[in-house]
Amino acid sequence: MSGEEGPTQQQQPEQEKKPDEPPSAASDAPQQESGSSSPAAEPAAVAEPPAAVAEPPAAVAEPPAATPAAEEKPLSFRALVLTGHGGYDKVKLQVKTMAKPKLKAGEVLVRVKACGLNFAELLARQGLYELLPSPPVTMGMEGSGVIEAVGEDVNDRKVGDRVIALARSGMWQEVAVVSADRTFLMPEEMSFEEGAALTINYMTAYMMLFEMANLRPGKSVLIHMAAGGVGIAATQLCQTVQDVTVFGTASASKHETITQGGVTHPIDYRTKDYVEEIRKISPKGVDIVLDPLGGSDTQKGYSLLKPLGMIIVFGAANCVTGQRKNLLAMAKTWYNQLSLNTMKLMQSNKAVSGFHLGYITDEQLFSRTMSTLLELYKQGKIKPRIDSSYHFEEVTEAMKRMHERQNIGKVILLPEPKKEEEKPKSNAEAGENVENDAAISEKKEEEVKAEKD
Amino acid sequence: MSGEEGPTQQQQPEQEKKPDEPPSAASDAPQQESGSSSPAAEPAAVAEPPAAVAEPPAAVAEPPAATPAAEEKPLSFRALVLTGHGGYDKVKLQVKTMAKPKLKAGEVLVRVKACGLNFAELLARQGLYELLPSPPVTMGMEGSGVIEAVGEDVNDRKVGDRVIALARSGMWQEVAVVSADRTFLMPEEMSFEEGAALTINYMTAYMMLFEMANLRPGKSVLIHMAAGGVGIAATQLCQTVQDVTVFGTASASKHETITQGGVTHPIDYRTKDYVEEIRKISPKGVDIVLDPLGGSDTQKGYSLLKPLGMIIVFGAANCVTGQRKNLLAMAKTWYNQLSLNTMKLMQSNKAVSGFHLGYITDEQLFSRTMSTLLELYKQGKIKPRIDSSYHFEEVTEAMKRMHERQNIGKVILLPEPKKEEEKPKSNAEAGENVENDAAISEKKEEEVKAEKD
Ligand SMILES: NC(=O)c1ccc[n+]([C@@H]2O[C@H](COP(=O)([O-])OP(=O)(O)OC[C@H]3O[C@@H](n4cnc5c(N)ncnc54)[C@H](OP(=O)(O)O)[C@@H]3O)[C@@H](O)[C@H]2O)c1
Ligand SMILES: NC(=O)c1ccc[n+]([C@@H]2O[C@H](COP(=O)([O-])OP(=O)(O)OC[C@H]3O[C@@H](n4cnc5c(N)ncnc54)[C@H](OP(=O)(O)O)[C@@H]3O)[C@@H](O)[C@H]2O)c1
Repeated sequence: MSGEEGPTQQQQPEQEKKPDEPPSAASDAPQQESGSSSPAAEPAAVAEPPAAVAEPPAAVAEPPAATPAAEEKPLSFRALVLTGHGGYDKVKLQVKTMAKPKLKAGEVLVRVKACGLNFAELLARQGLYELLPSPPVTMGMEGSGVIEAVGEDVNDRKVGDRVIALARSGMWQEVAVVSADRTFLMPEEMSFEEGAALTINYMTAYMMLFEMANLRPGKSVLIHMAAGGVGIAATQLCQTVQDVTVFGTASASKHETITQGGVTHPIDYRTKDYVEEIRKISPKGVDIVLDPLGGSDTQKGYSLLKPLGMIIVFGAANCVTGQRKNLLAMAKTWYNQLSLNTMKLMQSNKAVSGFHLGYITDEQLFSRTMSTLLELYKQGKIKPRIDSSYHFEEVTEAMKRMHERQNIGKVILLPEPKKEEEKPKSNAEAGENVENDAAISEKKEEEVKAEKD
Repeated sequence: MSGEEGPTQQQQPEQEKKPDEPPSAASDAPQQESGSSSPAAEPAAVAEPPAAVAEPPAAVAEPPAATPAAEEKPLSFRALVLTGHGGYDKVKLQVKTMAKPKLKAGEVLVRVKACGLNFAELLARQGLYELLPSPPVTMGMEGSGVIEAVGEDVNDRKVGDRVIALARSGMWQEVAVVSADRTFLMPEEMSFEEGAALTINYMTAYMMLFEMANLRPGKSVLIHMAAGGVGIAATQLCQTVQDVTVFGTASASKHETITQGGVTHPIDYRTKDYVEEIRKISPKGVDIVLDPLGGSDTQKGYSLLKPLGMIIVFGAANCVTGQRKNLLAMAKTWYNQLSLNTMKLMQSNKAVSGFHLGYITDEQLFSRTMSTLLELYKQGKIKPRIDSSYHFEEVTEAMKRMHERQNIGKVILLPEPKKEEEKPKSNAEAGENVENDAAISEKKEEEVKAEKD
């Protein structure tokens, strides 16, 4: 993959004025992504339309235009907009200007201070994430900031509150209108970066380990991408239970850090067969496998399960190779995915499950989980590890950092413009779109370039 | 199905002498059942050879012949032997005579007082249970009795101990040699019938609810065959957790009993659509489904799961219709079984698992679970419900009682001969084998005859 991208240039915000136009980038009712092809023509690995979602959490709207009567001085804000599916350059920094939004009942206006970058956004940019409304759309599923206005019927939030906010999309902008139910008060000692890093990674890890699986003392867990956002969250949560053994796969350079973080046995999956490595240490296998990779890795994970063990599939990172959608990688992941009948499961005493936070609509579960997580944070039992923070104009570098497997922990995006004196530091490489990205043996071909540490 | 069996006659034990012959009915290393056809020719629903069993628990041997040197006075005992696959008449009462067995290290000789009948034995008689060695073989997977002799290296059991004993097969005989590890001391207040009823039903229910699933306060559980052995065990175990809602399917005549036993919502699956009934009460569905039926019921159970819920498939009772193997019922169950890929699981946030006690080889898990269960028994939190007890010569009636869906709780077999004065009570119907048992619409065609209450 090295060499396929052109030099990075720092993004200059595009001015975009639409004071009267109705918002088009996002709306409260997210649509199915229209850009993905039919499942017949192309494996629908991550793009198959959801079957059973009753009430998807609302996407964050860019602040809706005010009714003419309520018109005040216009609001101008920076936003990272996905303009189409493809390479890094499809995510553009735009400056939007519109009338001050009139909040609906139950909504709050948040001045966003920090946003989380998730692997899902790499997928979404390639057109592989079915829960993002079709482009043009402001991306971003989580962030933190300060409440700037509250709508009617919002009694438990007030102007000035520091909150974490969660949405289907639209958090990557300087101001965002979100449902008050999807905001959570931040503890005083929590930084905005930590707040933006907590929600998706820790909720995902927590629900998998404690709601779906039944993590108890003495169990063993295989965590893939153990140095990533979810991986570090899962490792920390494993430490809250006595005597849990963690096998963690990650690129070799990250092993020291993840060992300090609680991984019992780090494994370099890029140079070693992790199944063999685990069998050497634990011939009987493991109790829980968290699988964000999909494809043949799900089969391997299943084979590693001890009786009464569970594998949870919660991602298809194997679909991502080059910068843009790779049909071959998708097909491979799709066709190699584990498919099972129940008789086989009976004879092996194993459990297979799937997890996707985006399809969970149980508000009680969300708030219960968040309050547990905030409690654990206050007790010092969990603490998001920030890998790096990039200003909006550096979004390409942020995405590259994750795509090129450099990050240890969370990659953060900051809406605030970069100060002049900081600027020279990061005029590295740009998101130029190169056609030739059909990397089949993805892991070997990627020469990871350390842009930033 | 009514009318397909001839009149029952009480079995007269067949005398069988084989003092020198090596035991043929069972051996310590159970073989794969050879009577089942190839998976290609016939759906291998419950007869597929196991893939991953390392050390199957030893079958109980009929007491092995002593070495000539150790010969003492010969032992004569009654045993229920499966002589071939088919109808009720394939299980024959035989009297065996052989030299007093010489125990190997770690073994004990048990004088069996009561044995459990399990649904698996109905399957096994039809040739549908792959873990039973091929006929001729003494059946029976659980029993209780008194230790009559101990082998070397057995320190925690002594002559006179009242024990529960567990084995792959061979427990349906008056004396049995078992591994001391697979015996468990009975509390004083426990009857032999209760001892014989506890192990398989409660272990199965316990491991499913607490090891595989993660039963916690406030959850809801669907228990099929709720008036059966496992069903009643599962219902009682649900009562040990606060605020658990139990939906239980059973024939209507059993509803009063199971409601008293803790089923919150009994459902007559024979006259009503249980999916509809459950949705009426709980539109969002249930958290855990215990599925001993297989086939299309697994699909229904899956559809009923709430997000983060789990279905555990642990049987294929739908394969059983008439007295003998029914290819059509097997094919239906096989082809309708749930088969899933992991992407679908992700989008629905559900877990699918299989459970089979017979494939569990973790001795620690067995003894840990048994000691928990015995503790719960002592605390009065669980208590096996004995439906009925039959002497060995009445085995046909015992099997019929279960097959014809009459039992509420456990059916017990007693090795001891029936006393003369009891005899007139049960000369009802015999296990005559009738060809015509291809009952397709199994549930409706079965006119249940109340032979005994
Ligand atoms: N289902 C859900 O609700 C849910 C929610 C959140 C996240 N997820 C999934 O969880 C996984 C982790 O997400 P995250 O946001 O925390 O990201 P992340 O782990 O920080 O992702 C980046 C890291 O993943 C590893 N990696 C493995 N395969 C890769 C590939 N094909 N391309 C790029 N990097 C790869 C790299 O580290 P190493 O080489 O060191 O391993 C890289 O540094 C993703 O699969 C994501 O889709 C699912
Ligand atoms: N995987 C394991 O480790 C394991 C261990 C033990 C048992 N099991 C399974 O659990 C289930 C229950 O076993 P059990 O030994 O406790 O038996 P049981 O429940 O006492 O079985 C008899 C009852 O099942 C109901 N039933 C439903 N479909 C039936 C059919 N096709 N034929 C006859 N009866 C039917 C009837 O009651 P209603 O009509 O009132 O419902 C009948 O009274 C079986 O499927 C068995 O294979 C599995």
